[in-house]
Amino acid sequence: MPFAFNVLATDSGCAARAGVLRTERGEVPTPAFMPVATQATVKGLLPEQAAEPATRMILANAYHLHLQPGEEVVAALGGLHRFMHWPHLIITDSGGYQVFSLPVRDIQEDGVHFRMEQNGRPVVLSPESSIAIQERLGADIVMAFDECVAFPAPYAYAKSAMERTLRWAARCKAAHTRQDQQLFGIVQGSTYADLRRACAEGIAALEFPGVAVGGLSVGEGLELMQEVLGYTVPHLPAHKPRYLMGVGLPEDILAYIELGMDMSDCVIPTKYARSGVLFTRVGRLRIKNAPYRRDKFPPDTNCTCYTCRNYSRAYLHHLFHAGEILGHSLASIHNLHFYATLMAEARAAILENRFVAFKREFLEQYLRLAKKSRHVR
Amino acid sequence: MPFAFNVLATDSGCAARAGVLRTERGEVPTPAFMPVATQATVKGLLPEQAAEPATRMILANAYHLHLQPGEEVVAALGGLHRFMHWPHLIITDSGGYQVFSLPVRDIQEDGVHFRMEQNGRPVVLSPESSIAIQERLGADIVMAFDECVAFPAPYAYAKSAMERTLRWAARCKAAHTRQDQQLFGIVQGSTYADLRRACAEGIAALEFPGVAVGGLSVGEGLELMQEVLGYTVPHLPAHKPRYLMGVGLPEDILAYIELGMDMSDCVIPTKYARSGVLFTRVGRLRIKNAPYRRDKFPPDTNCTCYTCRNYSRAYLHHLFHAGEILGHSLASIHNLHFYATLMAEARAAILENRFVAFKREFLEQYLRLAKKSRHVR
Repeated sequence: MPFAFNVLATDSGCAARAGVLRTERGEVPTPAFMPVATQATVKGLLPEQAAEPATRMILANAYHLHLQPGEEVVAALGGLHRFMHWPHLIITDSGGYQVFSLPVRDIQEDGVHFRMEQNGRPVVLSPESSIAIQERLGADIVMAFDECVAFPAPYAYAKSAMERTLRWAARCKAAHTRQDQQLFGIVQGSTYADLRRACAEGIAALEFPGVAVGGLSVGEGLELMQEVLGYTVPHLPAHKPRYLMGVGLPEDILAYIELGMDMSDCVIPTKYARSGVLFTRVGRLRIKNAPYRRDKFPPDTNCTCYTCRNYSRAYLHHLFHAGEILGHSLASIHNLHFYATLMAEARAAILENRFVAFKREFLEQYLRLAKKSRHVR
Repeated sequence: MPFAFNVLATDSGCAARAGVLRTERGEVPTPAFMPVATQATVKGLLPEQAAEPATRMILANAYHLHLQPGEEVVAALGGLHRFMHWPHLIITDSGGYQVFSLPVRDIQEDGVHFRMEQNGRPVVLSPESSIAIQERLGADIVMAFDECVAFPAPYAYAKSAMERTLRWAARCKAAHTRQDQQLFGIVQGSTYADLRRACAEGIAALEFPGVAVGGLSVGEGLELMQEVLGYTVPHLPAHKPRYLMGVGLPEDILAYIELGMDMSDCVIPTKYARSGVLFTRVGRLRIKNAPYRRDKFPPDTNCTCYTCRNYSRAYLHHLFHAGEILGHSLASIHNLHFYATLMAEARAAILENRFVAFKREFLEQYLRLAKKSRHVR
């Protein structure tokens, strides 16, 4: 079966849509949340744990895997899926965001020049080399190499970076040869409506099978993110998957679904888990806090994940205070289950044409009780 | 079913014996190896992973659990089994070894006086308080509070510590009230045959349901450990389980089995795993070493554990170099599987009256190839 994306329903009360990505490696219902497996592992979890109950797509990173272990190693071992024992879909990010985040790098038209942290060896990451790396890694979906800008960005710089992103997107498309991989374009343009529109139209013209919105979740906040999506999404191709990169908290995710995006990735559920923050129906639970020391309840009394079925808040509290990494794993299992369940419920709500009510009800419970309860802060 | 221990067979070529511990919580075939769960978790593993394929008993620690989270928390949560979601047997160590290891502590006849590292609060661990802590933790088997001595120890000090250990053992027995827990005595006496014999006879006279040999694996080496066991084991009760505390490497374990001990605990399989050392049939494999960077084979080509079924040496090499804790978990799963399999094969060999040959063949492969192979060092 070739790659396909079908929108099954669009909510009449907003732009939210339910769909399905169909690939040779299986189907992914959308909206979809992708856990991050930067270094070919969802931190602290076995693949089987990361996949529970419904995660079927993760994001790995070309930049990190180029530096360690190197794409030639991954290719020699049969590609990323086999290397990391993940049978479902994988996207690799191009490294554009990572090199943008480096303290010292030189962005030229040919590519981004920097030195490896470990040994000072000079590296050039370009549209062509990023695609070559990603082809060797062997993900199902690969991303164009873009120029991400910080927030806030002066208009002139945002414009030149957006135009370079378009030129680089064309070079990525020309360089990409693997028919079994889908190459997605990325829309930049910072917080400027005309730049976002121009970039969306330029990317659309290149006819990628999917389009991402990048350059958000870089400190602009939920309101401004919604504003940018509001004037960007209408210019994205209607019948292609729309991927919002690097977002976010549950409230952010519900906001982007409402605005018509189909998928996202974020480190938040696993990163917060490792710091002892668990997502529950009534808000975030900081398991290290004193009230949980003797608390017999599971982390989330509404949850059916492995952690909540078998462990108390008191045990997780103990693991975090004892410095035991099992606490990271149990909290990560729970948080990814929470995210996957949120996506499944959002999708069901869209199919039943009640997404706006679902979002309001979810947030009422998630945000209101969070303020009242002494247990959740 | 009350607690019982049955010796099913003794090898005619040595003192090795195969038996079974029968308890209300299930049966444990012996010889048995116990992974260490000091802080109520086998480091980095879910209980289900630690139990695979045949681990049915683990060791937790009264000293550590008294300091964090406190035995009253564990008791309020329903005891250790429920707290840590471990359905099989648990032994708690008394804390004798841990307070002996503290840099600053004052050993008096009433008990050991020290200060908590976190807050300087003074603590006295005594035979009575150790038993009270262990009763609240709720393990199936609890250990007497003993005075462990360093190696080497002057005779006079070893003698006085051994005599105190006997007096403390009697106080532990008097203090112990839970009928559903078995209290094991501990034989001390350093490396002195007359002290070991006197202690073994003194402990035997107290009629504990099981007897441990302590004060070994403290730097004396395999040969001296064998020598001590050689003159200690004959004075242990013949029909009670014999527990060697804190041992050891595969070669140490085969040595003590041959000398007639029935069980042991050790941090080695999980601690070595976290430093990237995997036990295989052909010796120890240091997964971080350069030859494994592209190695497609599983860690141990003879192994059926989850790690060896699904991952390559190259992937584990990558995880350790990338600093990903999944490497610790995968290596720990393998090492505990290796130890459990070793115990099962040793037991089968005893039941077939061929333990000495089994030990020789195992060590020939395990030690000889280790020296020859460039892959294993």
